[in-house]
Amino acid sequence: MIRAGVFGATGYTGFELVSLLEQHPEVEIVFVASQSYAGRSLREMYVGGSDLPLIAPGDAPLDATDVVFLCLPHAAAAQTAVAALNAGNKVIDLSADFRLKDVAVYEKWYGIPHPAPELLPEAIYGLTEFARESLQSTRLVANPGCYTTTCLLALQPLMAAQVAINGDVVIDAKSGVSGAGRKPKTNTLFVEVANNFSPYSIGRSHRHLPEMEQVISWWHQTPPQLIFSPHLLPVPRGILANIYVPLAGTVDQAALRALYEDVYADEPFVRVLPAGELATLAHVVHTNRCVMSLTFAGNMLIITSATDNLVKGAAGQALQNMNVMFGCEETVGLVR
Amino acid sequence: MIRAGVFGATGYTGFELVSLLEQHPEVEIVFVASQSYAGRSLREMYVGGSDLPLIAPGDAPLDATDVVFLCLPHAAAAQTAVAALNAGNKVIDLSADFRLKDVAVYEKWYGIPHPAPELLPEAIYGLTEFARESLQSTRLVANPGCYTTTCLLALQPLMAAQVAINGDVVIDAKSGVSGAGRKPKTNTLFVEVANNFSPYSIGRSHRHLPEMEQVISWWHQTPPQLIFSPHLLPVPRGILANIYVPLAGTVDQAALRALYEDVYADEPFVRVLPAGELATLAHVVHTNRCVMSLTFAGNMLIITSATDNLVKGAAGQALQNMNVMFGCEETVGLVR
Amino acid sequence: MIRAGVFGATGYTGFELVSLLEQHPEVEIVFVASQSYAGRSLREMYVGGSDLPLIAPGDAPLDATDVVFLCLPHAAAAQTAVAALNAGNKVIDLSADFRLKDVAVYEKWYGIPHPAPELLPEAIYGLTEFARESLQSTRLVANPGCYTTTCLLALQPLMAAQVAINGDVVIDAKSGVSGAGRKPKTNTLFVEVANNFSPYSIGRSHRHLPEMEQVISWWHQTPPQLIFSPHLLPVPRGILANIYVPLAGTVDQAALRALYEDVYADEPFVRVLPAGELATLAHVVHTNRCVMSLTFAGNMLIITSATDNLVKGAAGQALQNMNVMFGCEETVGLVR
Amino acid sequence: MIRAGVFGATGYTGFELVSLLEQHPEVEIVFVASQSYAGRSLREMYVGGSDLPLIAPGDAPLDATDVVFLCLPHAAAAQTAVAALNAGNKVIDLSADFRLKDVAVYEKWYGIPHPAPELLPEAIYGLTEFARESLQSTRLVANPGCYTTTCLLALQPLMAAQVAINGDVVIDAKSGVSGAGRKPKTNTLFVEVANNFSPYSIGRSHRHLPEMEQVISWWHQTPPQLIFSPHLLPVPRGILANIYVPLAGTVDQAALRALYEDVYADEPFVRVLPAGELATLAHVVHTNRCVMSLTFAGNMLIITSATDNLVKGAAGQALQNMNVMFGCEETVGLVR
Repeated sequence: MIRAGVFGATGYTGFELVSLLEQHPEVEIVFVASQSYAGRSLREMYVGGSDLPLIAPGDAPLDATDVVFLCLPHAAAAQTAVAALNAGNKVIDLSADFRLKDVAVYEKWYGIPHPAPELLPEAIYGLTEFARESLQSTRLVANPGCYTTTCLLALQPLMAAQVAINGDVVIDAKSGVSGAGRKPKTNTLFVEVANNFSPYSIGRSHRHLPEMEQVISWWHQTPPQLIFSPHLLPVPRGILANIYVPLAGTVDQAALRALYEDVYADEPFVRVLPAGELATLAHVVHTNRCVMSLTFAGNMLIITSATDNLVKGAAGQALQNMNVMFGCEETVGLVR
Repeated sequence: MIRAGVFGATGYTGFELVSLLEQHPEVEIVFVASQSYAGRSLREMYVGGSDLPLIAPGDAPLDATDVVFLCLPHAAAAQTAVAALNAGNKVIDLSADFRLKDVAVYEKWYGIPHPAPELLPEAIYGLTEFARESLQSTRLVANPGCYTTTCLLALQPLMAAQVAINGDVVIDAKSGVSGAGRKPKTNTLFVEVANNFSPYSIGRSHRHLPEMEQVISWWHQTPPQLIFSPHLLPVPRGILANIYVPLAGTVDQAALRALYEDVYADEPFVRVLPAGELATLAHVVHTNRCVMSLTFAGNMLIITSATDNLVKGAAGQALQNMNVMFGCEETVGLVR
Repeated sequence: MIRAGVFGATGYTGFELVSLLEQHPEVEIVFVASQSYAGRSLREMYVGGSDLPLIAPGDAPLDATDVVFLCLPHAAAAQTAVAALNAGNKVIDLSADFRLKDVAVYEKWYGIPHPAPELLPEAIYGLTEFARESLQSTRLVANPGCYTTTCLLALQPLMAAQVAINGDVVIDAKSGVSGAGRKPKTNTLFVEVANNFSPYSIGRSHRHLPEMEQVISWWHQTPPQLIFSPHLLPVPRGILANIYVPLAGTVDQAALRALYEDVYADEPFVRVLPAGELATLAHVVHTNRCVMSLTFAGNMLIITSATDNLVKGAAGQALQNMNVMFGCEETVGLVR
Repeated sequence: MIRAGVFGATGYTGFELVSLLEQHPEVEIVFVASQSYAGRSLREMYVGGSDLPLIAPGDAPLDATDVVFLCLPHAAAAQTAVAALNAGNKVIDLSADFRLKDVAVYEKWYGIPHPAPELLPEAIYGLTEFARESLQSTRLVANPGCYTTTCLLALQPLMAAQVAINGDVVIDAKSGVSGAGRKPKTNTLFVEVANNFSPYSIGRSHRHLPEMEQVISWWHQTPPQLIFSPHLLPVPRGILANIYVPLAGTVDQAALRALYEDVYADEPFVRVLPAGELATLAHVVHTNRCVMSLTFAGNMLIITSATDNLVKGAAGQALQNMNVMFGCEETVGLVR
């Protein structure tokens, strides 16, 4: 059995992760910790939650676990990672702390000095489908962001194949409200969100933008600039992004479709829809899938990509990464 | 022109009231006040809101207004009422401070000494349809609660006619989320409310219960005990209540229907649906209506009654009361 | 492996059932049939659905299955049951055809002659928790209705204990929209349902009323009359009912609470909440649970009971019944 | 008084229009017609609807009206227009029949021969803000589509100013479900739409695309190609579009912002938000507004534009056009 601990168990991501871990046949949950709710149980936070007692983060028995998941705000995550690694754990960090390799970029976008820059070189960027080999030997995983996962899986085949692109790539993305967290704020109240639809941080101002641009620069020799426009959808969960790629030169639709089908042919969690079908939230909600479709309009390729932000976009991918790191069947405990 | 001021303008009720006042042809808004947001504008609080500047409550020019509306928490409301009355205003209080005539009952349910018990005798309980005469001469109105309005309008004909009742009257009521206010709380977040439906304070524990029982005791010589079960509906606004009245003796359906139709025949805002139709939220949302239907099942009379909690249940009825108090046409500025 | 077939696989209940069967480790799906969509696949009907081909009902290989599930309209279900039984199958009928033991009652409420009255004596009413012994030996199960399941589980302890009741029992019940089926109708369109809440067939006019009254008459020597008021909730799934029971004589809250806790102490799918907690849809959605809470108000006992109408209220309970009929662990394939 | 008749009064657009006309102080409704529901009343179709009787289209007293509104499917609209014009009416057609000036384009996109091509030359494309002069003298108005209105108002300043554009303009647009009409279909059922978000007809395949491209070709000498991706939002009403314009050359943000502010400075229904604010559905729902915001990201200008599809996108703009045609104050009867 894999002995697991979870920090930050009372947010939406933490709760989703604990729910998945509880059903995983090869995992034993050793502790769930919460700064704000230590001494209570998950059941008090979530109807239907388990009776697991919430402990204070400082009381976490880090020597009794094999893996620790960090569902914490940035900065707090890196500090906890240090302690957990020192105690011999593998660490899967769902925050942004180890996603950006360049400290200067981190500090620009997050506005603080990096809390543990010495760990950055060994942190593996955990987009599972493209990190399996590294995951098997690492002790520190930076779990990708939700928007980022959705968009990178959609862009990887194009980027890795060095397909020529003629202009900015526009990403118009929409997320369910759980992506904004469970801390009460006016703009995520039911009355504000229902019947509404609203953009935020559009253009080049959202923190997932540098993360995406970093990764596509690993893949493409002349990566395009991205324009990224997130929105708040009146649904609890799910992300759907339209990615508009202006292709250079003559477009060979069949070849591009074949490229995608080849890359993802054997992937248990990624599905490329046949021509004529479009990805929707209903394809992915409550699953670890990423479902995508390709639409051609002249020289414009539109990739529509969907995930559940709490599953493939966070807790599910974290578990998928754990499965790889510990040699379990990759799909165990996940809906495909 | 009626010169009006609003305290507590940034909650859902306050904002609804300001929106109604802005469209009222005989009202001039002199000030809108907010403890928390003084110095900003309503437009910063609500997209689509007006540019009216929010002033601090202490800066309110009470000598420049004719009427003041209090959209404040209890206790704060009563204190402001004293100041506003002393400055010569008429006051319409949307809080609970002047609804309960018995100080002991107030103190039991609200847990504090009454802030201004000397004003209770002159306060008029502003269920407009049954208070018109008193409203014309009073300077202080206690605007009824939202659930209370919905249920009292449904019960008044039975109670005033001294119809015999055989057992407890069960009220199963459901409200949209705006009734819970705009202060951020976990249980009113979109993710918690969407796809959910939840009871709260059911039985004999909600603060609107003593208010309802007080008023029906004014009408019926042997008033029934009420069982009152409120719920949170996943909609922004609207209340629908089923009121189950176990009638004593033989039930004369036609006579009871005629009773309701007579009482409300000339009321602009109350509609008794014909047999075979049932009241729904869609009948009332965004209007000042109370729509009700009667269903008979053996000796049980089921009155289904619906209002918009922010309009007839709060800001709309406040404006209706103002219209009566100042001699305007009662329907001006209100959707009927 | 249990070889299963499903008739009526493209409605909400049928699709939920197929989804559950696909994940059941001891079931092999032999066929899924649909009158309207034969020749297509479930995936064409439901994004995320399986690739199972839909066959015409007449082509169903009834000699290749061990159990057949009927997710059909009444009348059609009974006719199919006859054929399936004749071919040697066990039959689990999710329609109303075998729920009512009295042919006259069936014909009054459904308006047609009973299609197979000769089968009524052997049909077991499949409220699993109270039918386990009979289920093991029967070949025909009448799966209870969704509202009925929710209310009967809540009433059984009181009824079986012959608790004295003083008046009508009022049931105010609310259901998600999937209960109305997937056939397009104006009143289940998104625009009609969103922001709305509406009663229908209230009083003593809904078809689940005689079903409930039949079963409580098996339990209680002097069963109360029921008043039953269903509503359409703006959520996709879930039922929550408040059941108001006017108790006769002195109420012993502790004893009644103990009664419920005893009856359901070992039940994997029924949970009686501790005092102070109230059942909500969030407790049950996407699970096979029935969660209930008890509230006392004078002589009135309020039982709040919740299920997922598609799971414990339909497909989940059907599978639970199958598990018992075929000697599987009762909880296999179901979320508890 | 302007004597008005409405064909197709029972769809969402027709009902919205009748509701607006009923509140318009200078309009008398002479008839409301419905092919499917003749003999019934609007109140039977819509709770809260008026008691106006629905007549058969063939019984419409076209000689007793001054203006006729067509809320009909294409083809049916043109045929009715001919009759109404012959009887001396002004006609405001909310269908697509007179929007496309080129018969060949109409026939390509709608798949039928144009029913009344002889009327095309005199039909005025009723984007009110840019058609006032022509509207005053015409007898036939083609009311623009909902997506089209939202996008054209956002593009007009750029296009009319001949701003140089370097590549395709991408429009990622999202609409509430009322845009899909009130005819029952599986894909607009509550259960299908709630918690979902889905693209349809994306790229260059939606019928509003040729309408938009036609109009921008009137404005810009070298109009860009449009990529247009509509989506179904889980809300009843409202459209929000992000329009991505790749600007050629150096971008002068201040000048472009000033351009927009100048064009719309005196428009009662169009609002350009200040820098730092983004348009949302909440700005426009239940109003005749178009609210837009400008965001710059390198050479990309993102115009976010929002309307209520049933008001400014259909019935409201139809009424606004009527006001201009009949010399009323343009804002009468409309929320600005």
